[in-house]
Amino acid sequence: MRIRNKPWADDFFEENDDVVVSEPFSYKGKWQEIFEEEQPLHLEIGSGKGQFIAGMAGTFPDVNFIGIERVKSVMVGALKKVKEAEVSNARLVNEDAKDLRDMFAENEIDHLYLNFSDPWPKTKHEKRRLTYRTFLEQYESILKPGGKLTLKTDNRGLFEYSLSSFSKFGMVIEDVTLDLHELEDENNVMTEYEQKFSEKGQPIYRCTVSVSV
Amino acid sequence: MRIRNKPWADDFFEENDDVVVSEPFSYKGKWQEIFEEEQPLHLEIGSGKGQFIAGMAGTFPDVNFIGIERVKSVMVGALKKVKEAEVSNARLVNEDAKDLRDMFAENEIDHLYLNFSDPWPKTKHEKRRLTYRTFLEQYESILKPGGKLTLKTDNRGLFEYSLSSFSKFGMVIEDVTLDLHELEDENNVMTEYEQKFSEKGQPIYRCTVSVSV
Ligand SMILES: C[S@@+](CC[C@H](N)C(=O)[O-])C[C@H]1O[C@@H](n2cnc3c(N)ncnc32)[C@H](O)[C@@H]1O
Ligand SMILES: C[S@@+](CC[C@H](N)C(=O)[O-])C[C@H]1O[C@@H](n2cnc3c(N)ncnc32)[C@H](O)[C@@H]1O
Repeated sequence: MRIRNKPWADDFFEENDDVVVSEPFSYKGKWQEIFEEEQPLHLEIGSGKGQFIAGMAGTFPDVNFIGIERVKSVMVGALKKVKEAEVSNARLVNEDAKDLRDMFAENEIDHLYLNFSDPWPKTKHEKRRLTYRTFLEQYESILKPGGKLTLKTDNRGLFEYSLSSFSKFGMVIEDVTLDLHELEDENNVMTEYEQKFSEKGQPIYRCTVSVSV
Repeated sequence: MRIRNKPWADDFFEENDDVVVSEPFSYKGKWQEIFEEEQPLHLEIGSGKGQFIAGMAGTFPDVNFIGIERVKSVMVGALKKVKEAEVSNARLVNEDAKDLRDMFAENEIDHLYLNFSDPWPKTKHEKRRLTYRTFLEQYESILKPGGKLTLKTDNRGLFEYSLSSFSKFGMVIEDVTLDLHELEDENNVMTEYEQKFSEKGQPIYRCTVSVSV
């Protein structure tokens, strides 16, 4: 008898291959094919347990969503959330977001989300921040001209850093809010981290930038 | 006998014409002439009671400072502060900063400061904000290529607005801090408003932007 040591998560992902994309690199340039409708494509990097992507997919049925999360055990949570939400416009990818240009063609994405990305506060870890220049190069490449990126975080250092990183790279800061929940934006879908930190009364920062047309 | 109804402030300004520049428009392109040393020229708009310009002039003797303040009674305070500080590298101008290009030549200024500018929170007053596009046009014109502008404020709305206004205009956000006094920047010289708000525990926002080279 074969010794079975395949992680349980893999089975769970395979059983749900309508949501989990097992060979994401093969879809470069043709992501629209795996969705029911051809409509704007939004990408979240570091989806965590999926509250945001599941909520967004329900709130915006006219948008196709892809969430990338590199930690398998965390993505299990996201898969559960997407299934519970019974949405057909969300897909999940269990990869590291370091080679986005191998996964997406130029101009394939309309909007990109970074939610509560790991702050990597030490200067020597700057290159790991998802708003470091090398990541911005990738984003600019896969985003459409005029495409947008929205960052939400509770982390002051990451937010300060990101604003100037975006600007130095040539992205335009379209909108900034330093206390998202005071604003009461009805269209805002909270992430797990956002809910946790805002319940503690911490301000949530958000900015939206655009890549040059 | 002549009836004397000239405001007292005017006399005080005239007596101190080594500090107060009575005909500022005549110095366009030749501001360096009225200073003892030819050195970088920094301009503060809305100097208020002068704590910042007097403190900066003392801290940075290698820089020439000009402060513009439109309210006469307020500028009296600034003049007192500059005199008390016994600095020779600060000048004051009692004018509205609306026609800066008539007062300064292109590329005449190295650094510009906006400290706790009136926030004008209503959208219908957007044009009055000192970071509205038409003001940025003036700043860009009088600043050297690569010259900088530093904004400090306690006002969240003005700060959020200004970041995107700078960025949309094409200025580059070099540095942002959302809690200046936590940073403990030793070179920071406090303004009156800054001192008042930070004593109350309110965060002070600061950003520095540069104009394109
Ligand atoms: C701090 S958590 C935030 C989770 C979620 N976005 C939220 O707001 O609740 C960051 C998540 O991003 C994931 N992540 C970080 N870097 C990543 C990368 N390069 N590629 C894919 N996922 C990444 C982490 O595994 C983690 O689940
Ligand atoms: C809120 S106070 C701040 C004063 C000082 N900068 C501080 O931080 O303590 C703003 C000052 O800017 C001056 N001001 C506003 N608009 C101005 C303009 N267009 N030209 C010159 N001064 C102006 C006002 O008269 C006022 O003294």
